[in-house]
Amino acid sequence: MSTLVVKFGGTSVATTERIMHVAKRIQREKQNGYDIVVVVSAMGKTTDQLVDMAHEISESPSKREMDVLLTTGEQVTISLLSIALHKLGIEAKSFTGWQAGIVTEHVPSNARIENIKPKAVNDALKAGEVAVVAGFQGIDDEGNITTLGRGGSDTTAVAIASALNAERCDIYTDVDGVYTSDPRFVKGARKLKELSYDEMLELANLGAGVLHPRSVEVAKNHNIPMSVRSSYEDVEGTILKEEIEVEKDLVVRGVAFEPDIIRLTVYYKEAYNGSLANIFTTLAKNHVNVDIIVQTIIQGTQPSVSFSVKKENLQDTLQVLSEHKDILGYDHIDYEGELAKVSIVGSGMVSNPGVAASMFDRLYREGIPVKMVSTSEIKVSVVVPQEDMLKAANALHEEFGLSLKEKVAQ
Amino acid sequence: MSTLVVKFGGTSVATTERIMHVAKRIQREKQNGYDIVVVVSAMGKTTDQLVDMAHEISESPSKREMDVLLTTGEQVTISLLSIALHKLGIEAKSFTGWQAGIVTEHVPSNARIENIKPKAVNDALKAGEVAVVAGFQGIDDEGNITTLGRGGSDTTAVAIASALNAERCDIYTDVDGVYTSDPRFVKGARKLKELSYDEMLELANLGAGVLHPRSVEVAKNHNIPMSVRSSYEDVEGTILKEEIEVEKDLVVRGVAFEPDIIRLTVYYKEAYNGSLANIFTTLAKNHVNVDIIVQTIIQGTQPSVSFSVKKENLQDTLQVLSEHKDILGYDHIDYEGELAKVSIVGSGMVSNPGVAASMFDRLYREGIPVKMVSTSEIKVSVVVPQEDMLKAANALHEEFGLSLKEKVAQ
Repeated sequence: MSTLVVKFGGTSVATTERIMHVAKRIQREKQNGYDIVVVVSAMGKTTDQLVDMAHEISESPSKREMDVLLTTGEQVTISLLSIALHKLGIEAKSFTGWQAGIVTEHVPSNARIENIKPKAVNDALKAGEVAVVAGFQGIDDEGNITTLGRGGSDTTAVAIASALNAERCDIYTDVDGVYTSDPRFVKGARKLKELSYDEMLELANLGAGVLHPRSVEVAKNHNIPMSVRSSYEDVEGTILKEEIEVEKDLVVRGVAFEPDIIRLTVYYKEAYNGSLANIFTTLAKNHVNVDIIVQTIIQGTQPSVSFSVKKENLQDTLQVLSEHKDILGYDHIDYEGELAKVSIVGSGMVSNPGVAASMFDRLYREGIPVKMVSTSEIKVSVVVPQEDMLKAANALHEEFGLSLKEKVAQ
Repeated sequence: MSTLVVKFGGTSVATTERIMHVAKRIQREKQNGYDIVVVVSAMGKTTDQLVDMAHEISESPSKREMDVLLTTGEQVTISLLSIALHKLGIEAKSFTGWQAGIVTEHVPSNARIENIKPKAVNDALKAGEVAVVAGFQGIDDEGNITTLGRGGSDTTAVAIASALNAERCDIYTDVDGVYTSDPRFVKGARKLKELSYDEMLELANLGAGVLHPRSVEVAKNHNIPMSVRSSYEDVEGTILKEEIEVEKDLVVRGVAFEPDIIRLTVYYKEAYNGSLANIFTTLAKNHVNVDIIVQTIIQGTQPSVSFSVKKENLQDTLQVLSEHKDILGYDHIDYEGELAKVSIVGSGMVSNPGVAASMFDRLYREGIPVKMVSTSEIKVSVVVPQEDMLKAANALHEEFGLSLKEKVAQ
């Protein structure tokens, strides 16, 4: 029998009533003849409540203990969903992260899955049971409970789909698919029927917020077809796969935007080789994610390197840099806040030169200053003042034909 | 260094404020120079709330899944208490049941601890850390999460004390010691300074409610000194140990009582050997606890056997008996409810004949009918109508000199 991995997020399991609703949806897929693994998140606001309790005790709780605390959230959901499935007459068995054999690296609060030992889950499937697995969590090789960081449950689902060689991984969520842009803020944004992993990866990385990039990365690496669909309505979602049909006249497939970006600039007394590698190696070792990097060596000015980080990572970044000032050999640092990133994404961009130029031209005409630029084969990102973010996104969405009512985004 | 195991129950850790208070108490013991293992229960009403959620979904949730659900309660407490200890500058590390190496039999919701592999906890102690262990929970040899049933956290604490060869196991609770009877219902009940394991065992078994009998049993078997003391006030509690000084004029040391007792009577067409063993072996195999047993074989009447169970076990008992009717070969069953058990306990009873007679005489004078009787070397229990329970307890407490203001219970 084919295996299907389905994942339900926190809002889909926020109450016992919704958990019962999820159980009924699983029942339908089970009747379609699949072996089913369900991955679930913590119920609704549970995680926030647990974090609040920890903060009542300490403003800087240990990451190891936060993982022990937060993983109880999914453990509650797996047991309740198993009980709900039993209620419908469906055999089901719950698995915490360690019971499902999800082994991660030894990095509290933001671990990557290293491997999955799926024997116990496989045994359950062979016995005809639905396996209900706690998302977001695992165990490291020292037996510590770990968590996978934001969006971790998506990653759990895709990694299990890969380990079990599943036919597909369906991510049920509170939106009904991936859109050309966020419909709450961008006029005329429409749902995409299909998207390539790479396009999704760029959109996910750029704050589209539907899927965590790590989950898409794992799906791409193992070529696991994924879908994003609604927990509430029975409508077709968006399918992610390797190859999709690209409409010629829709070179750009999505416009993403993300607020709360900080541009840091590190100044050196003099340029010297290796400093650039040093700085980013040091930051990576300390688990600080850096996004866009721009190096400026202009004769007559102080050599510098600029990079962008999320606002939430600013304190960590500054601390790591100051702790390593001696080795890194820089002179001083400054940073600029109140920035945002706006990006256009599309697989077709690689064979359509001039897309970036059109983008810059439009932003110029809108009077929006561009602070940083980054390009890849399938996307162009710009950093702009945060107050211009939505104006930029709407203008670009319209510029590249995504908002036109006559065309149906494929 | 000597190891001390301390246990805090649900009311002692009901809020983050109380958890901070517990951390401060541990800090004091740590300053006394002990290596410390703390065992904790779930916060306050957490367990009840989790049970309610499960019952919103199903009136008969699977025991395996209930164990997965309920064990999240202690997992929350261990992480929060560890965070609170860190806040005070104390190194601490949390351990779930499986992380602490607590291996139980494969009996969901009411497992016994089979053995403890204390390596991880020991490593933490050696590293100078306070080990914060989740009570009430373990793991069976198939990797399922199990729970130890009511009072399970006390058992966890004593079993760990035994595995680590601890100097003492202190049970912090919402009462400040063991009393001659429940002071809420019995006039003049007073705190005991010392008690033997056997006396406590009888009192615990008889509904005194302070400690779970299994925990006292483990303490007795491994000769671990225990104390019961208050989480709130810094006063001496009651010490439990093997040998205590018995005051000659206090033969009876405690009066215990327990409501909600059912007397079942199983009738046979004819007496036959083995039926008695069969019935209780069958019940034991199905994890039904039977208390007092009385067999009646009177010429000319239908042979029968009566036994008492707790009201909460009535449905299970009836189901097990009816499922095994063919093998057990009985004719029919009836039962009487609205009964209670009242008992007197004291190590000195073995060398003081006539105690039981004084008990029956006093009950007769009070006009209280005795429905069943059970005696051991250190206790006499009677089953009486529930409406007479407190009257009987007060009368016996007074009869055996426990209420006298002039004497101090030792």
